[in-house]
Amino acid sequence: MTQTLDKTYTIGIDLGGTKIHVVACDQNGQVLARARRDTKQWKGREAVIDRMVSMVEDLLADNDLPRRDLLGVGIGAPGLVDPDSGILYSSVMLPGWYDVPLAATLGGRLRTDIVVDNDANAAAYGEWWIGAGRGANTLVCLTIGTGIGGGLIINGQLYRGPDGTASEFGHMSIEYDGIECICGSRGCLGMLASGTAMARMAREAIESGRKTAMTSLVKGQIQHITGEIVAQAAEQGDPLAGEIVDQIARYLGIGIANLVNIFNPDKVVLSGGVAQIGDRLFNRVREEAEKRSFDVPFRRVQILPASLGLDAGAIGMAGILRMTLANV
Amino acid sequence: MTQTLDKTYTIGIDLGGTKIHVVACDQNGQVLARARRDTKQWKGREAVIDRMVSMVEDLLADNDLPRRDLLGVGIGAPGLVDPDSGILYSSVMLPGWYDVPLAATLGGRLRTDIVVDNDANAAAYGEWWIGAGRGANTLVCLTIGTGIGGGLIINGQLYRGPDGTASEFGHMSIEYDGIECICGSRGCLGMLASGTAMARMAREAIESGRKTAMTSLVKGQIQHITGEIVAQAAEQGDPLAGEIVDQIARYLGIGIANLVNIFNPDKVVLSGGVAQIGDRLFNRVREEAEKRSFDVPFRRVQILPASLGLDAGAIGMAGILRMTLANV
Repeated sequence: MTQTLDKTYTIGIDLGGTKIHVVACDQNGQVLARARRDTKQWKGREAVIDRMVSMVEDLLADNDLPRRDLLGVGIGAPGLVDPDSGILYSSVMLPGWYDVPLAATLGGRLRTDIVVDNDANAAAYGEWWIGAGRGANTLVCLTIGTGIGGGLIINGQLYRGPDGTASEFGHMSIEYDGIECICGSRGCLGMLASGTAMARMAREAIESGRKTAMTSLVKGQIQHITGEIVAQAAEQGDPLAGEIVDQIARYLGIGIANLVNIFNPDKVVLSGGVAQIGDRLFNRVREEAEKRSFDVPFRRVQILPASLGLDAGAIGMAGILRMTLANV
Repeated sequence: MTQTLDKTYTIGIDLGGTKIHVVACDQNGQVLARARRDTKQWKGREAVIDRMVSMVEDLLADNDLPRRDLLGVGIGAPGLVDPDSGILYSSVMLPGWYDVPLAATLGGRLRTDIVVDNDANAAAYGEWWIGAGRGANTLVCLTIGTGIGGGLIINGQLYRGPDGTASEFGHMSIEYDGIECICGSRGCLGMLASGTAMARMAREAIESGRKTAMTSLVKGQIQHITGEIVAQAAEQGDPLAGEIVDQIARYLGIGIANLVNIFNPDKVVLSGGVAQIGDRLFNRVREEAEKRSFDVPFRRVQILPASLGLDAGAIGMAGILRMTLANV
């Protein structure tokens, strides 16, 4: 291997509904610097864009990153994005953001190349580039949070579909007459196995009289139970929380079996808070997926937790930007 | 456009459990000659292979196809196939066929290049090459027969997955606690919306006392009801048969909505006998898929009946062979 003297770097921004996470990465995806601030979206769109601009400028200044080596900035946004035009069409997590020309606006302000993509695509690309998905030719990535986002690498390429709307694995129905989803379908994986679903299951059980340590974890305010609270309680041995983890693991296993039969992937990576639960979750997921998928593809697939944590989306965007520039 | 003087042709064989269908195709996929015979698989594997060899030799002789212009033979087999080695590992439709080196055996007998692929991949490729899927960059193809087979073109390439087991859309569960499938899962699309499912629904309704013209169509032998009989009765206005068509259209629409959310495809093509039912089926399929998929990808996707009929798999193999030789 030859050692190149490439000192260029790219910046990735993970624009979330509650946090903005920024990294600077070298050509190998190593993080040179990172920053994290609240989105404060109630201040309005312009304020959030100002905040992204100043976070990038501060990151360069605070870390002595030379401007001339910056190749560009990639922005991962939580919504429907057109990577070609760099427009964010709409976002459930950023209410009121419609048809926002992120690439044009930030490109003008930062005077550098900008690419925009969906945040779940970004996380998938990050995990594939230097995370748990490394080495996979075909990778399915599920990001489990409020809902379930998806990203897909096929034959070493990010697959977005012609409108950039592909890999919505959270909106695969696995129970066609099941619980109604905002997307218009029913029994979507994201309605059954997201953090939101875990919280709902906990509240319903408590309301029907189940005793659990979760009640005291939220000081009796059961509307404050989240997926993280359930995960935390399960780790501490709370029986109800454990049952909920087993139940969502089963749903995830069913959804993953479908995806194993559809893609014959090398790896399936689960990211997001829920994926941090560890062996209890993953063992059940694998058990259910094995029962329900064909033997040959199941023998190949590795079902793994993501390894980049909070950096995944931002690193992914730093990588997508680099790949985009290489392909221009 | 320049007119080439290419006179070469390729042969495609669709090896089915009951019929062997053979075509010779020119470089544009135009059928130069075709033949169809019973598989007679009860005579044993050797006899079936002999039959394929003689069908190819007869096709050349009977149609004055010059041996020197034959580029090779593609064989589509109903089972798990390794395209690299040309081995058919196993087949539900050809019981007892395990690890059959189709490429080596037929290559030796016919002294030409042989490629082997899965029959559903072949049908998808055929429809994409010169059928209803033409012009699609990303195509999802469902072949609805005894079960539901799948084939997938992504970015203009047949996608098989690393083990060649991808695109098993018939084994996507849409009702996780539903009817048990031989694959180990439950509520698979192929259990709910195949020809077999239609026949089962008809028999169950008749056994529970429903009157229908189907009973006389099979002379009271209700075990002889098939998906074709149901389709035929629906066309003749039989109410029960119509309800069954509506029901499987709903299931197909649900499964297709999942695939639209996953792939953002240009086209979804339905082939096989059931797809011949026409507007009543397709209107309901589209209606259900629209309800359950995202607006942007639904606006793009065309959901269409296959156009190559019985030739699809054989033409597809003639095309896959040509593509394979071009890529060597």
